[in-house]
Amino acid sequence: MRVHGQQYRTIFLADDGCTVAVIDQTRLPFAFELRHLQSAEEAAEAIRDMIVRGAPLIGVTAAYGVALGMRLDPSDAGLERVIQLLGVTRPTAVNLLWALERMRSVLMSLPAAQRVERAYDEAARIADEDVAACAAIGRHGHALIEQFHERRGSQVVRVLTHCNAGWLACVDWGTALAPVYAAHEAGIPMHVYVDETRPRNQGGALTAFELGAHGIPYTVVADNAGGHLMQHGEVDVCIVGSDRTTAAGDVANKIGTYLKALAAHDNGVPFYAALPSSTIDWTIEDGVRDVPIEERPAREVTHVRGRTEEGRLLEVEVVAPGSAVANPAFDVTPARLVTGIITERGVAPATRAGLLSLYPERAGG
Amino acid sequence: MRVHGQQYRTIFLADDGCTVAVIDQTRLPFAFELRHLQSAEEAAEAIRDMIVRGAPLIGVTAAYGVALGMRLDPSDAGLERVIQLLGVTRPTAVNLLWALERMRSVLMSLPAAQRVERAYDEAARIADEDVAACAAIGRHGHALIEQFHERRGSQVVRVLTHCNAGWLACVDWGTALAPVYAAHEAGIPMHVYVDETRPRNQGGALTAFELGAHGIPYTVVADNAGGHLMQHGEVDVCIVGSDRTTAAGDVANKIGTYLKALAAHDNGVPFYAALPSSTIDWTIEDGVRDVPIEERPAREVTHVRGRTEEGRLLEVEVVAPGSAVANPAFDVTPARLVTGIITERGVAPATRAGLLSLYPERAGG
Repeated sequence: MRVHGQQYRTIFLADDGCTVAVIDQTRLPFAFELRHLQSAEEAAEAIRDMIVRGAPLIGVTAAYGVALGMRLDPSDAGLERVIQLLGVTRPTAVNLLWALERMRSVLMSLPAAQRVERAYDEAARIADEDVAACAAIGRHGHALIEQFHERRGSQVVRVLTHCNAGWLACVDWGTALAPVYAAHEAGIPMHVYVDETRPRNQGGALTAFELGAHGIPYTVVADNAGGHLMQHGEVDVCIVGSDRTTAAGDVANKIGTYLKALAAHDNGVPFYAALPSSTIDWTIEDGVRDVPIEERPAREVTHVRGRTEEGRLLEVEVVAPGSAVANPAFDVTPARLVTGIITERGVAPATRAGLLSLYPERAGG
Repeated sequence: MRVHGQQYRTIFLADDGCTVAVIDQTRLPFAFELRHLQSAEEAAEAIRDMIVRGAPLIGVTAAYGVALGMRLDPSDAGLERVIQLLGVTRPTAVNLLWALERMRSVLMSLPAAQRVERAYDEAARIADEDVAACAAIGRHGHALIEQFHERRGSQVVRVLTHCNAGWLACVDWGTALAPVYAAHEAGIPMHVYVDETRPRNQGGALTAFELGAHGIPYTVVADNAGGHLMQHGEVDVCIVGSDRTTAAGDVANKIGTYLKALAAHDNGVPFYAALPSSTIDWTIEDGVRDVPIEERPAREVTHVRGRTEEGRLLEVEVVAPGSAVANPAFDVTPARLVTGIITERGVAPATRAGLLSLYPERAGG
């Protein structure tokens, strides 16, 4: 997508053909800067320090990290070393381990001399596959948005989203925001209500930045405001991402998603989750019961990071000192509140039958 | 209630019998400091600068401000001058105007020489009436909490609350928190989940402070977390305050209240609003349609105030620069989601008939 009028991916090969460039997301939304990764160590650091974030982007960065490592030492031992190095950078990133496993199985069967080139190829392939999946989600979501646009007599379509499921979390397009970008490209006037998404503020920082940089009108609101907006007919459709979706269509996503789904349901606003099928967990049905919810550090709630008047980034304490804090990072929206699931293969009802209609190969799984 | 083991009201007469002491709420939760008001001007400043906040407390401060003004000039002109001075300190505080009107009508009929003493008396009476109303809300709410306590086999009763409807917003006890304090005093083990309440953070700052200072266990959570907690059976009852309640039981309260009511309803958690009957607006029924919602400055969303590591209070910017922002300050929870209304006369269903059963004098109004 665009930043300052120029087209970017979140990760790409620099002109020298070997350095890997990434957008430094720790500097957003106040500065847009690229970082150039020259080694597996720097790739690991970029993941660990959250210079890159978002499951798909973490996976691609790890894959390129393996390629960078192969340049230095393409031996079996070298391969195992970089996979080990990169595998421990983030504790619960399934995509990370999946990408590393894919790199290992592709490279292990090759002689060391062929590994560098093949590693770069495979990393590029993983990136391109993610872009293709997100673009497909965008196309299917765009068709949906077209319907709302017609129903609204060709007026602006107002989308509410939560957290950042945009291109900054992926390589390009994003998941929840892919339909918005696709509809915008097709000339449909769009407006996005962006939940700030406490405690980490990915909405106010990242979603607001990427929509603004691409030129899509948006309004940031406190997480508390969405119900009021829907009560007053200000939202035509909610679209969120998903970290994990059960075979029955329950959607685990950033904490607070469930509250917006309740408000959408109460006000007759359609509520969609947009996700690549790789995030569907076909082994579980009941998300509230079976999706383990990560409890994150109290400091995310007690402290807020921002920019001072003098332009310095720092954290300020906002909660009464000595307070106990709970910080569940995700919640589960039951399928009954989800109008549909937008995947790279199309839109389906949030039911087992609906998802299987798109992924019949999973039947009997 | 207690702070550092000592009993306080938010406003009280100092030992000299004429200075008015208030808790400086702009310094909370990081420092507990009293301010001593010596003149109507200082009382006006305390209201305008939000050293005192919360409708009942603002009303009492204004009343004492009139008393302070009478010391200097008890003439008719002096009375009108202080009423004018105090009346313009906050734009939409109904309690403020009500208290000033009451002071005017009491004092106008007296000779100037008697006005100082009577003004102090009347201000004290307004304060005591607020304490009595809140204490009564506490008693009725305590009876409710006792039922939850029994139902839970005498285990800890877990309350979720939003914003600050505690004693810091009133003179003592509070509204939503009065039942919690009353139950705690009666020996029922309590635990309060405190929504941080963005954008102004009254939960994380004020509610957390006052519960901690009084010795009631609590946990601060992001506003997004409440639905997840209720899904997992962590909340026995929600109790919130109300800024305005319709004759049909619709509850206008701090933005985000509606989302918690939806989650409570979806999970079978009782949801109560606790309020003095003075906040019931008998002239309207449909709150979503008829309660005007204040739109507050964007800066409350784009900036967060907190304490730096060095102990300095400052604001940091947290939203992508140039973002459009919407900041509705309140929302309306439809009566169908409200289990009951706790008032100083008892607990009633959130219906016209329910409220009239407590306030029969309003029938035909």
